[in-house]
Amino acid sequence: MIDINKAIESLDWSKDPQGLYEPIAYTLAAGGKRLRPTLALTAAEAIMNGGLLNGDAIENTLPAALALEVFHNFTLLHDDVMDKAAVRRGRPTVHVKWNENTAILSGDQMLIEAYKLLSNVPADKLPQVLKWFNEMATGICEGQQYDVDFEHMSQVSIEDYMKMIELKTSVLLANAMRIGGYIAGADEAQQKALYQFGLHIGLAFQIQDDILDVYGDPKTFGKAIGGDICSNKKTFLLLTAMETADAESKAELLQWLMATDRNEEKIAAVTAIYNRLNVREAAEATMEEHTALALAQLDKLPQNEATEKLRVLAEKLATRKS
Amino acid sequence: MIDINKAIESLDWSKDPQGLYEPIAYTLAAGGKRLRPTLALTAAEAIMNGGLLNGDAIENTLPAALALEVFHNFTLLHDDVMDKAAVRRGRPTVHVKWNENTAILSGDQMLIEAYKLLSNVPADKLPQVLKWFNEMATGICEGQQYDVDFEHMSQVSIEDYMKMIELKTSVLLANAMRIGGYIAGADEAQQKALYQFGLHIGLAFQIQDDILDVYGDPKTFGKAIGGDICSNKKTFLLLTAMETADAESKAELLQWLMATDRNEEKIAAVTAIYNRLNVREAAEATMEEHTALALAQLDKLPQNEATEKLRVLAEKLATRKS
Repeated sequence: MIDINKAIESLDWSKDPQGLYEPIAYTLAAGGKRLRPTLALTAAEAIMNGGLLNGDAIENTLPAALALEVFHNFTLLHDDVMDKAAVRRGRPTVHVKWNENTAILSGDQMLIEAYKLLSNVPADKLPQVLKWFNEMATGICEGQQYDVDFEHMSQVSIEDYMKMIELKTSVLLANAMRIGGYIAGADEAQQKALYQFGLHIGLAFQIQDDILDVYGDPKTFGKAIGGDICSNKKTFLLLTAMETADAESKAELLQWLMATDRNEEKIAAVTAIYNRLNVREAAEATMEEHTALALAQLDKLPQNEATEKLRVLAEKLATRKS
Repeated sequence: MIDINKAIESLDWSKDPQGLYEPIAYTLAAGGKRLRPTLALTAAEAIMNGGLLNGDAIENTLPAALALEVFHNFTLLHDDVMDKAAVRRGRPTVHVKWNENTAILSGDQMLIEAYKLLSNVPADKLPQVLKWFNEMATGICEGQQYDVDFEHMSQVSIEDYMKMIELKTSVLLANAMRIGGYIAGADEAQQKALYQFGLHIGLAFQIQDDILDVYGDPKTFGKAIGGDICSNKKTFLLLTAMETADAESKAELLQWLMATDRNEEKIAAVTAIYNRLNVREAAEATMEEHTALALAQLDKLPQNEATEKLRVLAEKLATRKS
């Protein structure tokens, strides 16, 4: 398997004007899981029936894999501006280290760079890959907009929430799988299985994120526990609590949502309500359901080292602590 | 010739989430010259040896023409955020009418929409068109960054300035011409002539912009006269004045650049220095030079109604009053 980090490091940003390209280099050097290119390349491996990708196969698949990672990092860069987030992966965000205009313009260029990488997809595969990539990018912007809309809505159903995280998180993983597999020659049934695998691990991933924000171990989680509770974020846990609570618990919960000055107490109280309503168990059950749905897709693919790797990855994501 | 405004109006933005798509509809409905799609379609007509584009030819060329217009409007949307501009084409800008986050996110989606339109370019032409489009988009971001960099530089040469406006303005017009012509079947020599035509009318256009900002008729110009002088913008006129002034005039000019509280007086004084140094004549000569270079390219193309239209357009841009 090709070393994704090395491939990303080999992208050259030492061009002029440095004011435009340095923030891109900075953003991509921050690391992260490199989950999206890993999925794309592993999907390609699975379709090519195992073994390491090499030669032409790498040359064909790598541009799309890198495009997905650059695109993902573009979304983080602009999201951080919109969220006014000061820190990302332990370092100051671009709009803090430079300024907001730099974050906007370098972010725009990063999105264009993703398309530049994508333009190196083999010509016979390019029209379809470009369509899927655009569809994915659109989904993420739509998901982001729904997320913003939800902040101002008094009632959001779990169904709405699932649709939002599907757009915001899952379509990127699903398309990483589908695009990687398609370039490697996946047939339509395989494309569909790859897509569904990515979709369901994405949903499981996001629900696990919501669980960890409340029940994670502060030592391994990497962020403060209870952040979502403090900000009244409409997570799977909160929406489940709202849907399943009796009148008394619901009133108590709504009371706490109005508190903005007693964070420690609020986290403890809301967590206690969650515990009483068993929302953690409900969230875990849904997460496990989606993990199982993802794993079931693998049966429709060639059985080889790469599909085994995807199985391990899905299980690891579902049990991750950070 | 197809009606560009109608084609733009027929794009459907009545989708959910409206928070994402409404600002896109608003931006595109503001009108403007529609110069870029007009160039792309006219270039295609010129190559197809005149007559109106119809049927397949429209279907093949229109997606790229629309992509160019949507892309151009995306750059205006994000530029307005970065410049904190409150008004565009007589209406509140998106970040004023909605908010900054909306302008960022809807702008991002608009860039993606440009690529969605582009994905409808005929498959055999797509790889090359996508590469040129990416090259163009990169040029515009680089040009924008140089423009920002110039604000903080004490010395900018006319050569640097020309390079900047080439990136910021001309590469979009040049690629509109080249892409339109290429889709219509232009050979390499024709592609080059179309590109150079767009490049030179872009340079002439931008220099004319600088001239109008000082010497335009307030009645027809549409904006206040002297805006560039007030903000010390490094225009072709200012840089020419700095390069050609004797020590005394240069000192006087630098003195006025430091004044930030006497705008009326500053505009009058700097204009007087420009007049003394004949910078208007120098700018007009350079503008006419580029218009002539553009017109010379037309000799390398089939002579027909469309090339005649391009000739008229180049001459009109060079003598425009607004």
